[in-house]
Amino acid sequence: MHCPAFSITITFEVKLTNQELIREFEPIFYPKSIAVVGISQNIFKVGSLWLKAILDAGFRGAIYPIHPRGGEFLGLKVYTSIKEVPEIVDYVIVSIPREAVPELLDDCAHKVKAIHFFTAGFGEAGDITGRKLEEELIRKARQGGFRIIGPNCIGTYSPEVRVPYGPSGRIGKVGSVGFISQSGGIGEKLVELGVARGINYSKGISFGNGIDLDSADFMEYMAADPRVSVIGAYLEGAKNGHRLFATMKDASKLKPLIVWKAGRTDVGAAAAASHTGSLAASARIWSAALRQSGAIEVWDVEELTDTLLIFQQLGRLEAKGNGTGIAVVGGLADGGGGISVSASDACAELGLNIPTLSSETRRKLTNLLGRVGSILRNPVDVSQSGSNRSVIKEATGLVLADPSIDIVIVQIDAGILLKYFPWELVESIFTAFIELRAEREKPIVIVSPPGIDETRRIDMEQQLARASIPVFPTMKRAAKAILNLSRYSRFLKEG
Amino acid sequence: MHCPAFSITITFEVKLTNQELIREFEPIFYPKSIAVVGISQNIFKVGSLWLKAILDAGFRGAIYPIHPRGGEFLGLKVYTSIKEVPEIVDYVIVSIPREAVPELLDDCAHKVKAIHFFTAGFGEAGDITGRKLEEELIRKARQGGFRIIGPNCIGTYSPEVRVPYGPSGRIGKVGSVGFISQSGGIGEKLVELGVARGINYSKGISFGNGIDLDSADFMEYMAADPRVSVIGAYLEGAKNGHRLFATMKDASKLKPLIVWKAGRTDVGAAAAASHTGSLAASARIWSAALRQSGAIEVWDVEELTDTLLIFQQLGRLEAKGNGTGIAVVGGLADGGGGISVSASDACAELGLNIPTLSSETRRKLTNLLGRVGSILRNPVDVSQSGSNRSVIKEATGLVLADPSIDIVIVQIDAGILLKYFPWELVESIFTAFIELRAEREKPIVIVSPPGIDETRRIDMEQQLARASIPVFPTMKRAAKAILNLSRYSRFLKEG
Repeated sequence: MHCPAFSITITFEVKLTNQELIREFEPIFYPKSIAVVGISQNIFKVGSLWLKAILDAGFRGAIYPIHPRGGEFLGLKVYTSIKEVPEIVDYVIVSIPREAVPELLDDCAHKVKAIHFFTAGFGEAGDITGRKLEEELIRKARQGGFRIIGPNCIGTYSPEVRVPYGPSGRIGKVGSVGFISQSGGIGEKLVELGVARGINYSKGISFGNGIDLDSADFMEYMAADPRVSVIGAYLEGAKNGHRLFATMKDASKLKPLIVWKAGRTDVGAAAAASHTGSLAASARIWSAALRQSGAIEVWDVEELTDTLLIFQQLGRLEAKGNGTGIAVVGGLADGGGGISVSASDACAELGLNIPTLSSETRRKLTNLLGRVGSILRNPVDVSQSGSNRSVIKEATGLVLADPSIDIVIVQIDAGILLKYFPWELVESIFTAFIELRAEREKPIVIVSPPGIDETRRIDMEQQLARASIPVFPTMKRAAKAILNLSRYSRFLKEG
Repeated sequence: MHCPAFSITITFEVKLTNQELIREFEPIFYPKSIAVVGISQNIFKVGSLWLKAILDAGFRGAIYPIHPRGGEFLGLKVYTSIKEVPEIVDYVIVSIPREAVPELLDDCAHKVKAIHFFTAGFGEAGDITGRKLEEELIRKARQGGFRIIGPNCIGTYSPEVRVPYGPSGRIGKVGSVGFISQSGGIGEKLVELGVARGINYSKGISFGNGIDLDSADFMEYMAADPRVSVIGAYLEGAKNGHRLFATMKDASKLKPLIVWKAGRTDVGAAAAASHTGSLAASARIWSAALRQSGAIEVWDVEELTDTLLIFQQLGRLEAKGNGTGIAVVGGLADGGGGISVSASDACAELGLNIPTLSSETRRKLTNLLGRVGSILRNPVDVSQSGSNRSVIKEATGLVLADPSIDIVIVQIDAGILLKYFPWELVESIFTAFIELRAEREKPIVIVSPPGIDETRRIDMEQQLARASIPVFPTMKRAAKAILNLSRYSRFLKEG
């Protein structure tokens, strides 16, 4: 089997210190200048869109559009070649056809620090031309002293310095989450869901075929980067599995590393080969290796974002006693019984600990809510509160105060509440949890299922996110995110 | 162990014919008159709200508010007692305190056909008074010649005759889905999600403690009812497991029966005992019995509604050849590679068959989409279409025409598309699938993940629902719903 990409790993056999790593990746994540190759006067071409997105995002460094005809575009001077640019360029974005790439690389030698190829049609295309081009890219990068991101990817997302993720130009708030994605599309979804759900990124990267810089490189960097507190990765395969797993092991000791390995099945692996040219090893081998490395394996984009969200919002959960004690509060409108039963199932089926509340807590809850029709052991059904805000807040406070409880999950169904009450009252119930989160040390997780009247519910989700309350659409997803959070605590304790 | 409810099963040992069953349940699902006991001049009391909801919904039968003080309320004459009403009442809704119930029942003897108790505080309360009251209820029902629904439930939902589900009064479109829910709250969520996702009910019932009419009774009726094409059930336990399983076996032969058994875990079962007084048997026994009976077991409210939706929209899927051939189409905006890989995983991990498309189909797709950067075996990544509506429609049509394909799943991410294109173009891509669904015999399933710009996406989901296209928020949920659909086909074939 022909395996042209193996040679690149040699470059990294000398391990860099953290400071060297951070310097090495500075042109990629904190570029002072960006060149865009592949613009045209047609604004709907991808290169033009990309340039406009960078401008619109408010990138503060130098921007150099490149086109052989020169002239002016979007108010910027267009350079006829990279060679003409009056300084060393940190980051180059390329979307020209693959045939034109080798000549471009000659121009880039000793003139740029990193080149990102949106251009596809290399190793993943499966033809000889594509494979040969990849080899040529690597050779020219080594000779010309620059690094390659891709090809076949969207490259860098760096909200802090206003580098948008791709030509669509979305920029969210600056936070401490880092993502590494072999797929540009999945990266795009991560950025979008970040904006929608309040996951705030420090930086992200999509690296496609990863012929030079690969998952392990970015992981090593993000592990060293103090601005990143949790790393999420979408991987289809690895050029050098041994190195990747060693890197995951080191990274997991420093911060939580959440890995979604796709291409797990035969069909998925065949698709992965056409997508990023990845060879996908057996799913079982991956799962075992991930477990050993301390990385947290997730299974789809929902679980990846759920887990990033809970780590961002709740940090590292320090489990007490025999493990994490979860309490479930439901029934904020009438009829919390079924919710309580099914919520208990969702948590218990994942092995989460739902301790019976202390007799003191139960006595106080009985005084507050009355006996009949209420489930008060844990789960706690507060439907006897008659949706009274202060009773709900007090009951949840009592549960939070129970010594066996570390996290309280509140299921609050806006769609059901809005059938009985005006929005102002529903909103005031939601904000009771924001107050509790601020007043108490223990975390609150909210399950807010979709239904009708979505606009208000979604606005509220953003408010909760800002108050460090993670919100999930289903009890099962909340439970799984909490399980992932507590797994990392256990890993740190027990190794 | 004291088991007061066993006696009721005797009543049903004489099996009714379908016609007798339909007549027996007519007062419950197609009442000609409804009495509401427990109203007051305070409109915010539950009885008053319930009365108002029935009026607002446009129930066309007679409505009799009952209150000892008489007078008038909401423009209706208030009767001081059921006895005073000038006719036999089909359906009585009761929300008075439990202590007042025995006297009410004396008034109802030979005067009403069915009584529904919203009132709680019976067997589920766990006290002697509650249990004794339940026994008294049963005795008086037998003597008085009426049936009991509940206690501790929301009762009937019957959109055809404008009986709303509970005091919140939501009524959706009339369809052919039936639901049976031990929990009122879960029933409420089913109705709400029905409106939101286009699941149209023929009827529904929540029966709480089920001391007289129980899950098996309603199941038997809905199996016999020609207006119901698929039945969904939320169960916490069964008073008579033997009879329930026999009923499920008979029902499954006639129409798909989707069962969510909650209270599966110890914690869930403890909550179920407090909720509806159910004794939950081991989860494994339930799963085995459900499988044997031909019922389709689901695990949460999401899977229950997903499965009801796909049965409603696609009917009974007749699997051809070696099973159901699924094709996945993705990449409607740029970057469909990661989606294709993960979509394949989601389907293949559930054991769905994703056959490689025929060489003819692949040749035609290659001509249409070009070679480079596209995944065309199945999954099919149409990102090379440049989001051109007619190319996307033609490509999907080619996939639908492939002889090994029975269902096509299209992943279309409105949030991503809207970053690049105006809504009009995104909408036109969605409607291409509505056209294809009308033009072709094969079903299309759409995965439309949430993100930002939810309002438009949700409107579109409703449009798709009206065109018999089921929509799911994640690939995994779509794949699971298809699996459940194909399981029923296999059960009908192989028994």
